[in-house]
Amino acid sequence: MKVQGKVLIAQGGGPTAVINQSLVGAVLEARKYPQITHVYGALNGVSGIINENFLDLTQETEHNLNVVANTPSSALMSTRDKPDEAYCKQMFEVMQKHNIRYFFYIGGNDSSDTVRIVSEEAKRIGYDFRAVHIPKTIDNDLMVNDHTPGYGSAARFVAQAFMGVNLDNRALPGVYIGVVMGRHAGFLPAASAMAQLYPDDGPHLIYLPERPFDTDKFLKDVKNVYDKYGRCVIAVSEGIQDAEGNPIITKLTGEVEKDAHGNVQLSGTGALGDTLSQYVKDNLNIKRVRSDTFGYLQRSFAGCVSDVDQIEAREVGERAAQFAIRDNLDGSVTIHRVGNYAVDYRLTNIKEIAALTKLMPDEFINEEGNHVTEAFRSYVRPLLGSNMPQVGRLRAPKVEKLVK
Amino acid sequence: MKVQGKVLIAQGGGPTAVINQSLVGAVLEARKYPQITHVYGALNGVSGIINENFLDLTQETEHNLNVVANTPSSALMSTRDKPDEAYCKQMFEVMQKHNIRYFFYIGGNDSSDTVRIVSEEAKRIGYDFRAVHIPKTIDNDLMVNDHTPGYGSAARFVAQAFMGVNLDNRALPGVYIGVVMGRHAGFLPAASAMAQLYPDDGPHLIYLPERPFDTDKFLKDVKNVYDKYGRCVIAVSEGIQDAEGNPIITKLTGEVEKDAHGNVQLSGTGALGDTLSQYVKDNLNIKRVRSDTFGYLQRSFAGCVSDVDQIEAREVGERAAQFAIRDNLDGSVTIHRVGNYAVDYRLTNIKEIAALTKLMPDEFINEEGNHVTEAFRSYVRPLLGSNMPQVGRLRAPKVEKLVK
Repeated sequence: MKVQGKVLIAQGGGPTAVINQSLVGAVLEARKYPQITHVYGALNGVSGIINENFLDLTQETEHNLNVVANTPSSALMSTRDKPDEAYCKQMFEVMQKHNIRYFFYIGGNDSSDTVRIVSEEAKRIGYDFRAVHIPKTIDNDLMVNDHTPGYGSAARFVAQAFMGVNLDNRALPGVYIGVVMGRHAGFLPAASAMAQLYPDDGPHLIYLPERPFDTDKFLKDVKNVYDKYGRCVIAVSEGIQDAEGNPIITKLTGEVEKDAHGNVQLSGTGALGDTLSQYVKDNLNIKRVRSDTFGYLQRSFAGCVSDVDQIEAREVGERAAQFAIRDNLDGSVTIHRVGNYAVDYRLTNIKEIAALTKLMPDEFINEEGNHVTEAFRSYVRPLLGSNMPQVGRLRAPKVEKLVK
Repeated sequence: MKVQGKVLIAQGGGPTAVINQSLVGAVLEARKYPQITHVYGALNGVSGIINENFLDLTQETEHNLNVVANTPSSALMSTRDKPDEAYCKQMFEVMQKHNIRYFFYIGGNDSSDTVRIVSEEAKRIGYDFRAVHIPKTIDNDLMVNDHTPGYGSAARFVAQAFMGVNLDNRALPGVYIGVVMGRHAGFLPAASAMAQLYPDDGPHLIYLPERPFDTDKFLKDVKNVYDKYGRCVIAVSEGIQDAEGNPIITKLTGEVEKDAHGNVQLSGTGALGDTLSQYVKDNLNIKRVRSDTFGYLQRSFAGCVSDVDQIEAREVGERAAQFAIRDNLDGSVTIHRVGNYAVDYRLTNIKEIAALTKLMPDEFINEEGNHVTEAFRSYVRPLLGSNMPQVGRLRAPKVEKLVK
């Protein structure tokens, strides 16, 4: 006999361009089941649960839900809170009062760990309760998953951005450094490689957190490219570290802000890009050196989205509701590549996901550790979706000189 | 009798998303006239003329020209060179050797001044020569013009970016500062206002270079918004100045790089955003303060373009060729708004454009000097083009609390 009761959905961590697709997928699917009396949304993730801030999503029109699905960032707002046992007890007090029997949490590593804790606490107190984690992260760093919802759209933004800055840098040459999100995993900066069309197109160099960042090697790399092409476009992960594991940003700037999880603030500041710029200027005697830090634009920009990512984000939400409500199961919905290109969704034990981080596999990183491989390009290409912008070049012949 | 000879086209200054539309508009139109023997493109603006670096665009296919038209950044590459009299003499030596009789220069204020100097030099030496300036600048700061090609697409990028960061900031509240290009004219940061849908949407504050930036008033403004909404999204022009006309960035960072025109380097560094962030943190005791500097993304991003801007950029190129070749006239092609929304193109005396800067008119700036007016919104709306992304919000009712 299926448990009758309410569904509660929440969104945690950093927003993505498609996180509301998953929300809407789960809401619309959950509303189909007779044993579901209401579908609630918690505002600001788990903090909305302990503060009892719920919206009754049973009263949303399907039309408005579809408008919200196409809107970037978390429509239920987010949180950086990470529940401990006491926090969890408070959550259950509230959820039991409202007869909430199904919980869906859309988020990354930290959010999946929350689902694990909540699941265990439900078992411990003998409360009949299903909890399913719905994957989301632009970092693409969840275990078991071939890739994660949110990554494709952010990767597309990064690729389109580098298509543009490469052409800009070609028109007004110099050294350009674009700092891209990704604390531990380099999948997002790696996507910049998809901007390369001609052999001399940038990004000429890509630095990932999976490889130690050696400042001398960096200078040598930049000099080589600059000598060859008279310009150099570089993609750098915000999380690059030295051989001892110290973030380059911490090393260069001293004291830095940390969040509730003890993570160093990497985004929302141009410090890393500016420091690397200055380092190149000082050491290579190149005058025009510029850096941009892509910041929040890469995860929230309205109007740059991968259709493949949209569809998959919708489906993982829908599948979560099916696994929990129809099949009475707990776990994390995971994406598996079963064709080129086709995916399947499975329910995976949350312990295989929770609080773990997947890094770029070696086969995706070139030997020198300053670019990606063809294997990575094949992997990421379908995730960017259809109708990528096409850029062109003049191919007219040069005119013979008459004066000189 | 029309002068028989060659056409030479070049692109100057900062690239835009549609600058190649103007190039292709002029090339395709010029190729139709029997008196035109060849259409050349100078590589790297005027520096390609003195160095005799020409491409024979007569040999480009129409298909490839159309692919290039849809490609951001200057396909002929650019320059920051600003010719003096000696430079001009060298240009004429080369142009006469190649029997170049028509010169089109696509650019902003500095480029239009180059056209003026070249025109006067041709007259002085009695060389039968037509020169037409084709307008281009994301800053939208050319005199006489209602607006300039390149602005609409950059404005669209800024609006879409703020739609996203506003939603991101709503999900994870704090203070967010987005630094937008525009050294003297605030049209581009002002376009951020088009991201506002609901009354509590950001940008809540917009600071333009047309109004003195008072750091105390800034703090008071931010505090007011933060107290009201628990968050604050701010758009700031990179060129904000104090009451004495000192750029805030110069004031805060000391020595800074200058370009060949004596302009301070404002782009390609996160310094202004970071310094303003720190200033808010230090003085308002708000922990989560973030800044992004939109940098080169706002003028080169592949795949974010206004269709209205594309069409107009194409047409100003086409009209330039008609004015020079068919009508044998010199000047600058200017855009005039003659309907809501419709434009007409005229040929204006170059002296009314050259080296002058149009600023935001008072009626576009609110009384407090920290936002725009409805008049500005009406002005800018059609320039963003069609199919702007639509964002939505959940509007489900709150659930009654049972615990607290």
